[in-house]
Amino acid sequence: MSTVGILGGTGPAGRGVAARMASAGYEVVLGSRDAARAQATADAMAPPSVGSLRGGTNEEAANCELVVVATPFDSAVATVSALRAALAGKVVISMVNALAREGKELVALYPPRGSMAAQIAFALPESTIVGAFHHLPASLMEDLDSDLEADVVIFADDADARSSVATMVSTLPGLNGVVAGSMSLASAVEAFTAVCISINIRHKVHSYVRLAGLQH
Amino acid sequence: MSTVGILGGTGPAGRGVAARMASAGYEVVLGSRDAARAQATADAMAPPSVGSLRGGTNEEAANCELVVVATPFDSAVATVSALRAALAGKVVISMVNALAREGKELVALYPPRGSMAAQIAFALPESTIVGAFHHLPASLMEDLDSDLEADVVIFADDADARSSVATMVSTLPGLNGVVAGSMSLASAVEAFTAVCISINIRHKVHSYVRLAGLQH
Repeated sequence: MSTVGILGGTGPAGRGVAARMASAGYEVVLGSRDAARAQATADAMAPPSVGSLRGGTNEEAANCELVVVATPFDSAVATVSALRAALAGKVVISMVNALAREGKELVALYPPRGSMAAQIAFALPESTIVGAFHHLPASLMEDLDSDLEADVVIFADDADARSSVATMVSTLPGLNGVVAGSMSLASAVEAFTAVCISINIRHKVHSYVRLAGLQH
Repeated sequence: MSTVGILGGTGPAGRGVAARMASAGYEVVLGSRDAARAQATADAMAPPSVGSLRGGTNEEAANCELVVVATPFDSAVATVSALRAALAGKVVISMVNALAREGKELVALYPPRGSMAAQIAFALPESTIVGAFHHLPASLMEDLDSDLEADVVIFADDADARSSVATMVSTLPGLNGVVAGSMSLASAVEAFTAVCISINIRHKVHSYVRLAGLQH
């Protein structure tokens, strides 16, 4: 697995994952509705020392071996639905959270199927959906010099897929993949992002989740 | 604030909080429907070096200055409703999570008002509800010799109450209280307990949440 496409990759969340994956040797395509903007975004990022990073269309990103959905939540289903054929047979990682700002905090929204991962899974019946990368502060993710040491909670119904994504995540600098379980945990994982960001806003920090006691 | 009552205090979650609070100097009443059983539970626990720990009825626990609800989720509303008068005017901490076991994992249930804290708040309109103590492994909580160093996410609509509970939690050994925000975050905090316990079951560990980057 060497090529990775990030759908909606020009936002902070997508850029953070792109930076970490490129630095681990992947050939990363930042996908966007606007390929020129995606290329400009890639050009403005720190050049990866090992892998590669370029902009492209969401279609180009969807043609990669591994695909990460990093769009805003309210465009995720439309984006992946249009790419259903290209995404068939692939592992598709959802890092999407449905969140709304209310005053000083972010609150979790509950999509009709319970989670954004479930919404995306329904839109992509021929793909294997894995949830990952939910609680990470985008700015620390993109800055490879930050001292990020985060645990990344992974969920999927497919045992092989969640295991291989956890292994892949653990090869990325500063990240440790931890399989939590099935898609039944999706809403709980996604919603906790609202808690993390609310803490960050309130305390003016870039906090992230470590799971102590894992003995990894 | 020196007396603390734990409603449903004989279960693992209640005992863990009782042990930590007694060791910080509080006079703790482990409440139960069966006061004799509660006293037997208290007698079987390690005697606190500073505060005190005894068993009693839930009514005795509710007469303490600070009250923690630690019952199973499906008896929480019935328990607190019967104690509404005794709990009026007080801060009541909910550590209740609505969880169900499904195979190898726990899944979060979503109560009709969104969270157990909201269910309890509706049952206790004259009390001030604060959420705390959700993601903690009970066995490590009760064992004061464990190297527990956990962050405890606090939420409440009442800014003074959440702030004072966070301060109180931070005085307990091994715990650091972090205000996340309002009751709008309750379901996300409670549901994440399902993720923590599922990870513990799957990986045979006693993990817990640390929030890195808080700079506390």
